[in-house]
Amino acid sequence: MSPEPEHFTHAEVLGMETALSAARQGVRSSNPLVGAVIIDADGTFLAIGYHKGAGTAHAEADVINRLLGTGVKRDLSAATLIVTLEPCSHVGRTGPCTQAILDAGIGNVVFALPDPNKTSAGGAEILHNEGINVRMGLMATEAEDLNRQWFIAVRENRPFITARLAQTVDGRIAAVDGTSQWITSKESRQDSHELRARVDAIVVGTGTVIADNPRLTARAADGADSAKQPLRVVMGLREIPADAAVRGKAGTDDFLALQTHDPAAVVRELQARGVGHLMIEGGAKINAAFLAQGLVDELVVYLAPTLLGAGIPALTDLGIGTLENAQRWEWDSTTRGPVEILGPDLKLTLMPAKAASVEGK
Amino acid sequence: MSPEPEHFTHAEVLGMETALSAARQGVRSSNPLVGAVIIDADGTFLAIGYHKGAGTAHAEADVINRLLGTGVKRDLSAATLIVTLEPCSHVGRTGPCTQAILDAGIGNVVFALPDPNKTSAGGAEILHNEGINVRMGLMATEAEDLNRQWFIAVRENRPFITARLAQTVDGRIAAVDGTSQWITSKESRQDSHELRARVDAIVVGTGTVIADNPRLTARAADGADSAKQPLRVVMGLREIPADAAVRGKAGTDDFLALQTHDPAAVVRELQARGVGHLMIEGGAKINAAFLAQGLVDELVVYLAPTLLGAGIPALTDLGIGTLENAQRWEWDSTTRGPVEILGPDLKLTLMPAKAASVEGK
Repeated sequence: MSPEPEHFTHAEVLGMETALSAARQGVRSSNPLVGAVIIDADGTFLAIGYHKGAGTAHAEADVINRLLGTGVKRDLSAATLIVTLEPCSHVGRTGPCTQAILDAGIGNVVFALPDPNKTSAGGAEILHNEGINVRMGLMATEAEDLNRQWFIAVRENRPFITARLAQTVDGRIAAVDGTSQWITSKESRQDSHELRARVDAIVVGTGTVIADNPRLTARAADGADSAKQPLRVVMGLREIPADAAVRGKAGTDDFLALQTHDPAAVVRELQARGVGHLMIEGGAKINAAFLAQGLVDELVVYLAPTLLGAGIPALTDLGIGTLENAQRWEWDSTTRGPVEILGPDLKLTLMPAKAASVEGK
Repeated sequence: MSPEPEHFTHAEVLGMETALSAARQGVRSSNPLVGAVIIDADGTFLAIGYHKGAGTAHAEADVINRLLGTGVKRDLSAATLIVTLEPCSHVGRTGPCTQAILDAGIGNVVFALPDPNKTSAGGAEILHNEGINVRMGLMATEAEDLNRQWFIAVRENRPFITARLAQTVDGRIAAVDGTSQWITSKESRQDSHELRARVDAIVVGTGTVIADNPRLTARAADGADSAKQPLRVVMGLREIPADAAVRGKAGTDDFLALQTHDPAAVVRELQARGVGHLMIEGGAKINAAFLAQGLVDELVVYLAPTLLGAGIPALTDLGIGTLENAQRWEWDSTTRGPVEILGPDLKLTLMPAKAASVEGK
């Protein structure tokens, strides 16, 4: 690759814009949102693909699969694969994208940004050494913005963190007497179970365990356990009852107690255990502790059309004394959009506002 | 009209369904949402109309205007006007609908529900006496449901009441130090001014006047006063400063101080003064007082994508101790829908849930 600014064709720009749009259809996870497009030598779009979330095909594999279907060979030496992130070089839950590109015989690759992940980086060099024409830097700003919280998490060497709130319109997660089952509808709770099945670990505080005795398992609509279960983590200094449901079956290793109040310590421990995507499920103190330390990349709010007027607020103190210092977020328009209707409830998805992220640096 | 159940044609049923859909495009106000359709003798749709909100043409006038345009005469003696509420008989800000129907020469009228308003009722009888074939009762349940809060307000002989909240995602309307300008964006504030220009009166508490010194006028984006201004009402026992902005210019009668904490007393007083649509603008105590007494027909929440974690909650105590007694609302899908994007904010519109309204009876 040349150190000079690269030249990109109009078709390549259109291709990258399309790849960025396609990327937005994916689900935020321990993996970034990535989209890819293959164009012909004359600029014709041949296929569009994207990554649907951790554990599914990468965008490059997806777009190649869509183009080649059931294995028909086709000469792609003059074609260009345009992708929003450097193709990975490592074998994770899926094979390396570099190999998929070489196998397909694609002659040209354009990508927006280098992969910041040490274990998967270096894909561009591998492709270049195999004789593929590789160029980078097209719409790098937009590609960085699309995954800016993921980039922050990678640079901070920590999991991607989602916080989940289930609250009334007036921001209460339980009534005065502590009752909270159920603030939200069964549709919201089912969506919440699907979230659990996607993440690698869930964190709650000892207070939630003692008050609600949750199982914290991911369950299907019929109550059956989902195939993939998150690690169940309880943080805090209070004792967890011996018969707490969160402990699960004796002898299994999907439960972890961390005797700390420090979100950063929890995050370090879980990073060391290979957790890529962590979900914070409350209560109010735990939510606030992670939020106050800038350790939330995505905020999911299930909003029930109810009012309580009193009771337990969604968050305890964030250390904010005046309006100017309010935490600024923005609606996340990726995936199914920032507002989703779930039965009688709304599901709102937010990410830290851009300026706030920069300030936090 | 016959005391027997009326027979309605398939075209009339389709017409009423369409009229109900059209009605939903209107804006809730001191007038109900009303839609109207004119069909030909063979069932062909000739025109669809609806009422856009207080001060604009009624649905019957709207649909007739749309059909007849600039005054072209047309024989409508075999046509049927289908409308979701009994045509009114009185001259308000617009002429009586009965006269518009007679002038247009429409031979048949079908409506869903009788007008519960004493001053405007009796339209069906007038039309019948003029020789028009009038039938009622088609889709009466759906028509009642569309305006159920308006019907409640009319039966309770009080204004239609909108409460407005401007809050963070975690339900705060001010920070710990009381700062609240501005929680929401300029787009939300502009929308709020448009709401003010639509209502007949605004109520705030003395606490809000002392803390924020609002003018409570309806203003255009350029800051100029809107043509129509609401009556500015301050309720509460604390003294209102002599130089409070809400007092406006000396010698004008658009300001009213009511020395009471009782929402019902405020509502009675404003009803007596001819207020048809009232908006509650806070603070938390005033919002809660009206909500706790079931005196809110429509809840508008401007939701800023920010978090405060502490500060003043949107509502003080509603007297609800346990989740089972939470106030149940539902998203209002009329007008521009239950969720609107206003710059960086969301505008959510809710109405009391049906079951709750029934329980309140």
